[in-house]
Amino acid sequence: MQNDEKQIRMLVATWMAATQAGDVDTLLSLMAEDAVFLAPGRPPMRKSEFEAAAKAGRAPPPFDGTSDIEEIKVLGDWAFMRTRLTVVATPADGSPPTELAGHTLTILRKDGGKWLLARDANLLSPVQRQRT
Amino acid sequence: MQNDEKQIRMLVATWMAATQAGDVDTLLSLMAEDAVFLAPGRPPMRKSEFEAAAKAGRAPPPFDGTSDIEEIKVLGDWAFMRTRLTVVATPADGSPPTELAGHTLTILRKDGGKWLLARDANLLSPVQRQRT
Repeated sequence: MQNDEKQIRMLVATWMAATQAGDVDTLLSLMAEDAVFLAPGRPPMRKSEFEAAAKAGRAPPPFDGTSDIEEIKVLGDWAFMRTRLTVVATPADGSPPTELAGHTLTILRKDGGKWLLARDANLLSPVQRQRT
Repeated sequence: MQNDEKQIRMLVATWMAATQAGDVDTLLSLMAEDAVFLAPGRPPMRKSEFEAAAKAGRAPPPFDGTSDIEEIKVLGDWAFMRTRLTVVATPADGSPPTELAGHTLTILRKDGGKWLLARDANLLSPVQRQRT
């Protein structure tokens, strides 16, 4: 495996761990300065908006999840990646956990030798579970 | 404007016109052989699946739409692009039109001098209109 691909896999593992821990500082350190995050039904979110929301106590809550990397393509100092993501969010108010699943398409950039998230499209949608 | 960027803008215009016309052959000619299309709540769709669905009469219906290109970044023979897309689908059965809006994140590849869609994340979601 290429060294760049290894570093990108490590970035994803660190990102998932920081998300589960609610570690906003680590998440910010993994984003390019001009990072843009896209998701259905809301405006694009830039790094500065993520940071402002976190400082105002409006950061996304910690959640468990798994990320299966389906494709990484390195293009010099840029790369793109496709993952299959599953997330379980447990609200603090005691209501039942919500499961979300879907794919992501991410653009990464190598900046000073370090890979960072630059653009991210998050296609998560709620999982409808049959009651057993 | 770079020549590559001009060609990519032309590709988007051709794609939108072919979508509005329901011109499946043109859409297929704009996709890389290994193209993958991602959208919320359904499995990834490959070019071969798009083609098989179209031949079986299960192609997406023609619809009107506008695509505003927010960013194009050319990386040699690859590029990525972010657009803001609005689509109005009018069902053939006479039910009211549905409006969808959202962003796309697309990876493009130059193949034999021609830009093609290679990976596409489509974040369209229904627009909730207030009744007037």
